[in-house]
Amino acid sequence: MKHAIKNGVVIDEVEAVVPITCREVQQNFSVYEALRMVGNKVVHLDDHYNRLSSSSAQIGLELSVSYEELEEWINKLVKEDNLVDATLRILVYGGALNTLFVTWTPLLTYDNSYYEKGVSVITYEGERFLPTCKTSNLLLSYLALEEAHSENAFEALLVDRFSRVLEGTRSNFYAIKDNVLFTAPDELVLSGVTRISVLKAAEELGLTIVFEAISVDTIFDYDEVFISSTSMAAMPIALIDGEEVAKGHEITLKIKDKVREWEVL
Amino acid sequence: MKHAIKNGVVIDEVEAVVPITCREVQQNFSVYEALRMVGNKVVHLDDHYNRLSSSSAQIGLELSVSYEELEEWINKLVKEDNLVDATLRILVYGGALNTLFVTWTPLLTYDNSYYEKGVSVITYEGERFLPTCKTSNLLLSYLALEEAHSENAFEALLVDRFSRVLEGTRSNFYAIKDNVLFTAPDELVLSGVTRISVLKAAEELGLTIVFEAISVDTIFDYDEVFISSTSMAAMPIALIDGEEVAKGHEITLKIKDKVREWEVL
Repeated sequence: MKHAIKNGVVIDEVEAVVPITCREVQQNFSVYEALRMVGNKVVHLDDHYNRLSSSSAQIGLELSVSYEELEEWINKLVKEDNLVDATLRILVYGGALNTLFVTWTPLLTYDNSYYEKGVSVITYEGERFLPTCKTSNLLLSYLALEEAHSENAFEALLVDRFSRVLEGTRSNFYAIKDNVLFTAPDELVLSGVTRISVLKAAEELGLTIVFEAISVDTIFDYDEVFISSTSMAAMPIALIDGEEVAKGHEITLKIKDKVREWEVL
Repeated sequence: MKHAIKNGVVIDEVEAVVPITCREVQQNFSVYEALRMVGNKVVHLDDHYNRLSSSSAQIGLELSVSYEELEEWINKLVKEDNLVDATLRILVYGGALNTLFVTWTPLLTYDNSYYEKGVSVITYEGERFLPTCKTSNLLLSYLALEEAHSENAFEALLVDRFSRVLEGTRSNFYAIKDNVLFTAPDELVLSGVTRISVLKAAEELGLTIVFEAISVDTIFDYDEVFISSTSMAAMPIALIDGEEVAKGHEITLKIKDKVREWEVL
């Protein structure tokens, strides 16, 4: 039997439910995080906790758990279900409900062929509400990803009203040309925990970083394009809307290796 | 003990819960309706069913309940809890969850003084995602209404990037000047079930209807401004962002009376 954490208490996972009569559930007054646990180690818990705090603060949700408590709660779940590798999900409802859940699923990983060949993505017009905030207000992402899947694509890139490619539904986006890495500025996108490592890796590899979202009209002009997320690290893109993009993904894979390396340090 | 309906079956209301491990819950792949039941009669069930169908269709959610089934399910709940007057809520999750709930709360009514004096509202910059669709993606509405309540206001009017006053967080918006009633065109707002009656009443009262959203910069230039919803019918606005607005609300109250009259026909 799988378990979960509800406000610090171990429960059966089937009891990880919320009442639909509650306004916070009806209106998604809620923030979340997805984390990797690899070889008994929860990766970047501090960064995830900081982002959870930031998301909460941005919508006026009072986060009542401390870093130490959250760590302790996660450890309880890890012990209860003998977790070694897993994807953990923290979900916090605010207001009157005031409930924090931790649940887990098997570690989400991608076959090497994804990295070798690169993935297929689509472009999708839409802007996230409160882009810097990881809330549960995710219908746009749901619909965009459904559209991607219906076209056998792996991810959807969200394009804003100014034709800028900002981010994916569950990833940050990057384009490289002549050793310059372009990515949207922090105020327009979710500050990915993995993005921190990606930018650090890019710097170590001698790339110049420019915080500027590229136009979807120029997307085929770059040397490499890729997305990043907790589960993907850095994932090369090979096809956009069915058309071949970029010349290779050598730098992307170097970045990915560094990101993964740092996770287990 | 209160009850609820889950896919046609009567359950205890406390069992009206959804699993947070389910993607449709995490990402709000869900639509809803709020209805009035007055003196044993469910008001405009047909219109609500049609809108539920339309909302579902717009996001690709397969609504598997027929009008007749829904009516039967509601009747089961009415009988089980001896309902006479109530506010009913229909909530449908799509995808793998595929669950329809009906829950109820005491009939939401407003004291006569609200209608006599008019209510206070604030303006709030924000645009609803998929404005013609009544989805559970409601964080914007939640935050706007929290802001309104913090300023002792009754409702928040959503103002778009072009300074247009489109609608409230749970209401449609109207402004009257020289016997012309202005309201946003259907494609920009939620097609309120009560809005249908409001427009019909306005026509009967000899008003000319112009489907145009007014600018927030001109909002103090109108004879009457009001909002409509299932629970409010037509509710006059007396204050906007703390400033007195409109000269009176005679026409608004005539519209309200007609809307309420038709409900019990």
